[in-house]
Amino acid sequence: MMGMVWLDGRLMPAGEARIDPADRGFLLGDGLFETMWLAHGAVPRLDRHLARLAEGCAVLMLPCPDPSMLREAVEELVEASGMRDGSLRLTVTRGCGPRGVMPPAEVRPTVLLTCAPPAARRGAVRLGVSRYVRDGASPLSRVKSLNYLPSVMARMEAAAAGFDDALLPGAGGVVAETSAANLVVLLDGMVLTPPVSDGALPGTSRAVLLEAGFCVEGSVPLARLADVRAAWLVSALSVVPVAAIGGRALAGDGGQEMVMRALLFG
Amino acid sequence: MMGMVWLDGRLMPAGEARIDPADRGFLLGDGLFETMWLAHGAVPRLDRHLARLAEGCAVLMLPCPDPSMLREAVEELVEASGMRDGSLRLTVTRGCGPRGVMPPAEVRPTVLLTCAPPAARRGAVRLGVSRYVRDGASPLSRVKSLNYLPSVMARMEAAAAGFDDALLPGAGGVVAETSAANLVVLLDGMVLTPPVSDGALPGTSRAVLLEAGFCVEGSVPLARLADVRAAWLVSALSVVPVAAIGGRALAGDGGQEMVMRALLFG
Repeated sequence: MMGMVWLDGRLMPAGEARIDPADRGFLLGDGLFETMWLAHGAVPRLDRHLARLAEGCAVLMLPCPDPSMLREAVEELVEASGMRDGSLRLTVTRGCGPRGVMPPAEVRPTVLLTCAPPAARRGAVRLGVSRYVRDGASPLSRVKSLNYLPSVMARMEAAAAGFDDALLPGAGGVVAETSAANLVVLLDGMVLTPPVSDGALPGTSRAVLLEAGFCVEGSVPLARLADVRAAWLVSALSVVPVAAIGGRALAGDGGQEMVMRALLFG
Repeated sequence: MMGMVWLDGRLMPAGEARIDPADRGFLLGDGLFETMWLAHGAVPRLDRHLARLAEGCAVLMLPCPDPSMLREAVEELVEASGMRDGSLRLTVTRGCGPRGVMPPAEVRPTVLLTCAPPAARRGAVRLGVSRYVRDGASPLSRVKSLNYLPSVMARMEAAAAGFDDALLPGAGGVVAETSAANLVVLLDGMVLTPPVSDGALPGTSRAVLLEAGFCVEGSVPLARLADVRAAWLVSALSVVPVAAIGGRALAGDGGQEMVMRALLFG
């Protein structure tokens, strides 16, 4: 059965799920989310996602939903939806509140879990360099928050300019990430991914690659993009090769890509 | 009758209004809003709000709802709610979409209009200086978007530190605004409000004060805060005097405050 969601403790058809118009997620983007890989009816990196969610909740001073409840929610939705492969999205907001910026004294978070079938595998993408900048100095740059407009705009502007996706700079002339994925590059013979302090979100797949020693954290100056030999968009769901950055074609490296895929989705 | 809302062309009790869990406003903060002063059953600065909404929609590449429809919505909701004084909030999102950052080919915006009774008049507030910075160089800093987390966090952190509200710096050591209002200061005998390029949102009340010649745009360096003699939070709904910034008490200026109130809410 498709189109089921889990909302605040209950499974229901998506068409019956109601977000309250007073939800601070809707009114203020006051919340966060996780996008998780679903494989053979399980979420292989669920622990990492729940840990990052807890860290994000701490930054937002938001009471984190009980992890065991979230695990059960995942199991229930996977079973009810009958979906074996694809992705899950967990959204947690600060719930409903009165008018204004300040949350109510007692917060009851909204918790929504949805699923989606596997996306078609993306071919190599051509990246434009966005005018939207990630501020690595902001505590929010480490949180996968609902404030996703810079990514939306970067992606739309890239599409309007004839690119497939956008590379977002960090402050000070470095690369941060792309609109919805971390960036991994081959530069000077090293496999690098921008550090969180340069504005990269601490992605789960990025963490796997770092822990495996496949890549290291290192700043990628915008001025060095011309020397990047290969690059990939790395997210919880995929590894997508970069065909070109700003119109300049990359050589690519199929071997590195195969290793990455094996480490992440093997 | 209280608790009515206008959602996508229909009046209904707030408890019956349903935001779709696939709404991009909820999932990505992909939208914007206006908070409007309701006085004697009318919205005195409706034209300004609709103009700013249109500008914001242009920045977001979002089809702007028809202004005449929005005017009718305001009339209908005011009549149905029976509310004569208080505030209206108009929220426009990019509507529902599939998974991911990129909007669907055909966008049907969600339009929500709600009303709230007048808030209790706030006494003089003590401001803390936030670690959250407004990036005046981002096109989004000019848009009253749903990406409101920096304000939420600034306000919560200020409250946790014993302040009433937060002053948010712009880039480069200047003042931008406060968590939900523009800032107007008396400094060196001049009445100043930070320019949009310093990260200030182009507020409607701010515009009224500028056009009236009550104040002028001028950068307020953080290093000069110690010399600010009086300051006010200026929003669509109120003028709130600042009692202290970062623990330093301000002298205040009741005369200037009276003029401002007369210009805005007289």
